[in-house]
Amino acid sequence: MSQGKRIVLAARPVGAPKPSDFRIEEFAVPTPGQGEVLLRTIWLSLDPYMRGRMNDTKSYAAPVPVGGVMEAGTVCEVAASNNPNFAKGDIVLARAGWQTHAISDGKGLAKIDPKLAPISTAVGVLGMPGMTAYTGLLDIGKPQPGETVVVAGASGAVGSAVGQIARIKGARAVGIAGGKDKCDYVKNELGFDDCLDHRETEFAAKLKFACPKGIDVYFENVGGAVFEAVFPLLNPFARVPVCGLIAHYNDTDAKPPKWASSLMFAMLTKRLTFRGFIVSDFASRHGDFLRDMSGWVREGKVKYKEFVTEGLDSAPDAFMGLLKGANFGKQLVRVGPDKA
Amino acid sequence: MSQGKRIVLAARPVGAPKPSDFRIEEFAVPTPGQGEVLLRTIWLSLDPYMRGRMNDTKSYAAPVPVGGVMEAGTVCEVAASNNPNFAKGDIVLARAGWQTHAISDGKGLAKIDPKLAPISTAVGVLGMPGMTAYTGLLDIGKPQPGETVVVAGASGAVGSAVGQIARIKGARAVGIAGGKDKCDYVKNELGFDDCLDHRETEFAAKLKFACPKGIDVYFENVGGAVFEAVFPLLNPFARVPVCGLIAHYNDTDAKPPKWASSLMFAMLTKRLTFRGFIVSDFASRHGDFLRDMSGWVREGKVKYKEFVTEGLDSAPDAFMGLLKGANFGKQLVRVGPDKA
Repeated sequence: MSQGKRIVLAARPVGAPKPSDFRIEEFAVPTPGQGEVLLRTIWLSLDPYMRGRMNDTKSYAAPVPVGGVMEAGTVCEVAASNNPNFAKGDIVLARAGWQTHAISDGKGLAKIDPKLAPISTAVGVLGMPGMTAYTGLLDIGKPQPGETVVVAGASGAVGSAVGQIARIKGARAVGIAGGKDKCDYVKNELGFDDCLDHRETEFAAKLKFACPKGIDVYFENVGGAVFEAVFPLLNPFARVPVCGLIAHYNDTDAKPPKWASSLMFAMLTKRLTFRGFIVSDFASRHGDFLRDMSGWVREGKVKYKEFVTEGLDSAPDAFMGLLKGANFGKQLVRVGPDKA
Repeated sequence: MSQGKRIVLAARPVGAPKPSDFRIEEFAVPTPGQGEVLLRTIWLSLDPYMRGRMNDTKSYAAPVPVGGVMEAGTVCEVAASNNPNFAKGDIVLARAGWQTHAISDGKGLAKIDPKLAPISTAVGVLGMPGMTAYTGLLDIGKPQPGETVVVAGASGAVGSAVGQIARIKGARAVGIAGGKDKCDYVKNELGFDDCLDHRETEFAAKLKFACPKGIDVYFENVGGAVFEAVFPLLNPFARVPVCGLIAHYNDTDAKPPKWASSLMFAMLTKRLTFRGFIVSDFASRHGDFLRDMSGWVREGKVKYKEFVTEGLDSAPDAFMGLLKGANFGKQLVRVGPDKA
């Protein structure tokens, strides 16, 4: 019986996760029972929302228990099957978590056709992050031609798609990213109208300069200093899809932010819309998303970049880096080869 | 030439308006020029939004200049007309402000048919406050049968309509008002499912008890302690039309409220929608509103209460009282008789 590896939550982080909050364990790769399949993980997706699952707080999803396998979306190969719906060798989208192997009863697995696109895109531009961008921007942000759309994490999995879709819809896309390389990529490769480095001095003033007609849609995935700079620039009737708050995920001390006392007044006088969402709220849009996004990717209108670390053992470091913006593109862990 | 009276903004209030912030002036009633009408005010509507107009801050409408006539919606009689669209004796909805007489070129005037309903309702249940309730609740709040709708100022012009429309739509309506008399009226006369006195001790605990299934729609027109009690009770996917913040209109010191640090997180994890609006944003719904609301009033499904003070001179005191909740029902000033 071969050995598998998994990464479990060793302790609930206080503030930023540290290596000792994770633990690598080995386990005997199990044999699938009746109706089950054995999954072998090829790609592990790392995404900011996982930080929330490490806390013991009420949210839209249950926390990972201490000692439990870290959750994740994965691209897996069916290594053995006792389920008539799946054959050995099938490539599937799964939620196998941070581990090399997992047993599944087949529920929630979706087959991936490797001929249509690189299979890693099933957890990227054609998967959860891409659909998060698509639905949050189009169904809540509703950008109109000529409007200004601002998004942070602009070189990342979600942000890069937000800005490119905004451009497709005729809006002006202004990205925010950390560092010159990312900003150059966002402008030159992804075709955003502008991209600002939030680490630079006078960031707020530069954002104002880059948005001479104000901001109509702010796709919120960071919070913190970026929101503070965005807030006074929001135009009347601006829409703010609230998708994530990565700048705060490691907060231990929740001080009311500077803008807080004026937020409700601004909502009222500027008639702003703020709406939180997660991608599954728009499950009915999956067909539209796949049709549009795969077309845009094929036509080169939506580009994506992957940031790959090698081996399951690299996942904790990669994840800690992701929370600090160390990744440049969609963060993936290559857990195993495409074909065993 | 007869004398008219008007009330002007004498000084911008710091905190709560005081009598010296207003000044009564007399003026010679003017004669309408070519294309103009002379309006004689019968009913003056006092509404919380007017507090905002007294400040010199940017908002959806320009501030009243110091020395300028206080703004207001009014029901007026056409006292003299040089405009072919209006005849002497016509009753019109106007924005004549806090004064006995005004000149108008006819733009923005709407004729009122006194046979259909008491003419005062044109600035009440069948006017701006009623339409504010209707559009904010139905177009943003979207209450579903069985859901819980909470509204403060429940005996007032807007709140009373919100709760009654919620009931018509099959939702559970929980009102909040100041004092036992108002709460009794809201429950017994208006038919809300419950009404809580925000002045009582343990108000937050009582609100929780009154909303055993949480809150799906909170029609925000007060802010302050009421929002603080409502916030933790908001259900996933709750909608918060932001219509007013009367508890804060006299604030001089804007401290970040307690809930502020968790607001964005709650929006995200509970997928809340907050949307500010003013009634004119839904101008296209005016026909629907008039049809539905006049029907409901006729059928007794929507009741309303008027709180009348006599004479233009009473307007400053009545307005200062309104901001403290001294009114019991829609606040009106009887400026002149129905027929001169």
